[in-house]
Amino acid sequence: MLNFNFYAPARILFGKGEESRVGELLKPRAKKVLLHYGGGSVKKSGLYERIAASLTSSGVAFVELGGVMPNPRLSLVHEGIDLCRREQVDFILAVGGGSVIDSSKAIAMGVYYDGDVWNLYESGAAIERALPVATVLTIPAAGSESSGDTVVTNEAKQLKYGYGSPLLRPVFSVLNPELFFTLPKAQLGYGVADMMSHVFERYFTNTTHTDLTDGLCEATLKTLMKNAPAALKDMRDYDAWSELGFAGTVAHNGLVGMGREQDWACHGMEHELSAIYDIAHGAGLAVLTPGWMRYVYRDNIEMFVQFAVNVMGVDGSFRDPDALVEEGISRLAAFFARLGLPGSLRDLDIDETRLEEMAKKATGAAFGEERPIGGLKKLRWQDVLAIYRMVL
Amino acid sequence: MLNFNFYAPARILFGKGEESRVGELLKPRAKKVLLHYGGGSVKKSGLYERIAASLTSSGVAFVELGGVMPNPRLSLVHEGIDLCRREQVDFILAVGGGSVIDSSKAIAMGVYYDGDVWNLYESGAAIERALPVATVLTIPAAGSESSGDTVVTNEAKQLKYGYGSPLLRPVFSVLNPELFFTLPKAQLGYGVADMMSHVFERYFTNTTHTDLTDGLCEATLKTLMKNAPAALKDMRDYDAWSELGFAGTVAHNGLVGMGREQDWACHGMEHELSAIYDIAHGAGLAVLTPGWMRYVYRDNIEMFVQFAVNVMGVDGSFRDPDALVEEGISRLAAFFARLGLPGSLRDLDIDETRLEEMAKKATGAAFGEERPIGGLKKLRWQDVLAIYRMVL
Repeated sequence: MLNFNFYAPARILFGKGEESRVGELLKPRAKKVLLHYGGGSVKKSGLYERIAASLTSSGVAFVELGGVMPNPRLSLVHEGIDLCRREQVDFILAVGGGSVIDSSKAIAMGVYYDGDVWNLYESGAAIERALPVATVLTIPAAGSESSGDTVVTNEAKQLKYGYGSPLLRPVFSVLNPELFFTLPKAQLGYGVADMMSHVFERYFTNTTHTDLTDGLCEATLKTLMKNAPAALKDMRDYDAWSELGFAGTVAHNGLVGMGREQDWACHGMEHELSAIYDIAHGAGLAVLTPGWMRYVYRDNIEMFVQFAVNVMGVDGSFRDPDALVEEGISRLAAFFARLGLPGSLRDLDIDETRLEEMAKKATGAAFGEERPIGGLKKLRWQDVLAIYRMVL
Repeated sequence: MLNFNFYAPARILFGKGEESRVGELLKPRAKKVLLHYGGGSVKKSGLYERIAASLTSSGVAFVELGGVMPNPRLSLVHEGIDLCRREQVDFILAVGGGSVIDSSKAIAMGVYYDGDVWNLYESGAAIERALPVATVLTIPAAGSESSGDTVVTNEAKQLKYGYGSPLLRPVFSVLNPELFFTLPKAQLGYGVADMMSHVFERYFTNTTHTDLTDGLCEATLKTLMKNAPAALKDMRDYDAWSELGFAGTVAHNGLVGMGREQDWACHGMEHELSAIYDIAHGAGLAVLTPGWMRYVYRDNIEMFVQFAVNVMGVDGSFRDPDALVEEGISRLAAFFARLGLPGSLRDLDIDETRLEEMAKKATGAAFGEERPIGGLKKLRWQDVLAIYRMVL
C-alpha cells in the first residue's frame, strides 16, 4: 500500500424527496445562485419546477443557465462565467448529470480566473479560489457529484481535458434514485460502463498489499453488475437505482483507489474519441476496456486472474491463467452487450481515419512531449493505436 | 435501502512518516494547541519528541496533558477543559488511541459548555461549538480518528456513555502503520475485535436491498480477518498493519452503514462491562458478540446465513441453515481465540453478581425508562441478561 491522503468532504443526501431540501440547505450559504442545467428533461420531469420552488420558498435568489450538452462545451462555460460575474452569483447549483456538474465546476473556477479558464485545463495550474458548487444528480455515471474533477470539451480545438482541485468538490449532492426513472435505457448502459471504469482505473494496479481496497473495488463492481440488469428490466426499480447511484459515488469519491497506483489509460483513450466524434463517454469506455485488458493483461496476469475470479465469477483452471483471464474479459464484454452498449468503434461510426492522430494526442506525442499513459502498463502512442485497432 | 446523509470530512493522512507533517498542518489552523496523550508509551517510542519537534519547528505553541487511561475518565476531561480555558487553547491534538481521542473530543466540546460536560453525555443535547481536534493514531481500534463520536467513563457513577456530533469529527488524522509496531499483542486482539464490531453493528440489519454496503462490510471484515494473524505473527509487518489501520477507519467513518438500520446492542452491552469492571472494550466485545449472534440469529436467519457464507467462508448445506449459522459463529469465536481474546465473562473475572444490574442499566430499565436496545432484534433487559448468562 502506498502513502495516501484521503479527503472526501462532499455531503451526500441520499433518497426519496431529498431534492426538496435544496432551498433550506442553500439559504445559509448563498445570496444568489446560478441554477445550471442541461436540456429539456429537467423541465419535462417537473424537477426544475420543484428546485425553483424550493429555492424561492427559502428566499434564495437565482439566475439560470440551461443548455449543457453531453461532453460539455467550453463556449457555454464562458457564457456562465460572464453571467456569474454580471449577476454577482456566489453559489452554483448543478441540476443534471456529470456534464452539467463539470460545466458548473468550470464556471466556478473560471469566475475567479483572470484569463481563459481553458488555460487551467491545459496547464493544470493550481487554483486558489472557486465558487462553491452543489448538485442534484439526475444521471448516475460520472461520479462528479462527489469528486473534485471536471472534464470539459474545447469544441473549437476538438480537445477534451480534465482538471482537478479539492476546491471543486461539491458542498453537497442530492442523490434521489427516483430522478433516474425517466432516463433513456441507453443512458443506463453508458452510466454503468463509466462507473465500472472509475473502479477499473483504480483496481488494475501493480501496487501490492491492497486487500481492503481490492475488496471495496470488487464489492462496488459486483453491485453495479448485479443491479444494472434489474434497472434495465424495470426502469422504475427504486432499489436497483439506489445501488447504482450509491455505487457510482463510491466508485469516484477517491476511497477505493487510496494507496494504489492508478491507471486511467482507458479514460485518456476515450476522451480522444468523444472529443472528436462526440460519442457518449460510457459508450467509448465499453468499447475500449475489453481491448485494453487483452492488450495489457500479460504485464500483471495475477491481477487479471483476481479480476476474473473475484469479479466475473470465473471458476476455471488456474493452471491456464490466460484462458481464465480471457473468460473474465469475455464475460465483461458480454455484460456490456447485454446493456446495449457498443462492442466496437465501427458500432460508433468511427473508422481508421483518425486513429493515429488520436493515439498521438492521447499520449501527448502530437504536441511534441510524449508522456506514456496508464499505470499498470505504460502505453506509448503505438500501444494506444494498437488498442484502437483491436477494437475497430 | 433507507434514505441517508453521508458526511465524512476527516482528512486521513496515511503512511510512513506522515506524523512529521503535524506542525505544518496545524500552523495555519492553531495559535495554541493542547497536546493530549496517554501514558508513557508515546514518550518511550520517541513519538512525543517527534510531534513536539514538528510543532516547535513550525512555530506552533502548545501545552500538554498526558495521563489518559483506557476507558477515559471524566475527571481528566474536567482537568483538560480547565487547562484549555486557562491557556486559551484553540486546537486539540490527540496523540494516542481511541481513549485519547475521545477524551480530546470531550474537552473540545466542554470548553464551550456552561456546565458539567457529562450532562451532554447524559442528555445527548446538540452542541453548537467545539474546539477543532486532530489526531495522530497509535492504536487502530476505535475508529474515533474519523468519527464524530466520543465515549467517556464517569468513574464516580460507574457509567460509560457515548455522544456524537458532526462538530467532533477530527479535522485530520495521521495513520502511520509504523506507530503500531510497538503495541502489545493483546492490544492487537482488542483492536481487531472492536473494528470488526463496528462493522457488525452496521452489517446485521433487517433493512433489505443493501448490496453495496453488504459488500463493503464483508470486504472490510475479510480484510481484518486476513491481516490480524499476519500482524500477530510479526508485529512489525507494515503491510498487515496498513490493512488493519485503513480498515479500522473505513469500519467507523459511517460509509459502510449508510442506508441501513443499525444494531449497536453489543456496544451497549459492552459499555456496562467496561464501566464497572474497567476491562478492555475489545475484550468485552469478543466475549459478547458470539453470544449475541446465537441469541438473535433466528430473527433474521438469512442475514446470518449470508454472514456465515460470505464472511466466514462456510460452505455447508443451505438446507440446514441453523448448522450453517452455528458454523459461522463458531469460526468467529475460534478466530477471536486465535488472537488471544477471552471467550467468556469468567475469563475477564466477571461473575454473576452484577449481571442483572448491568442488563437494567444497558436498557435504561435501571433508570425507570426502558428503551430496548438493538436494531436487528430489540432487546429488553431480560434479553440482555440472558445474553450475559450465555457468555458467563
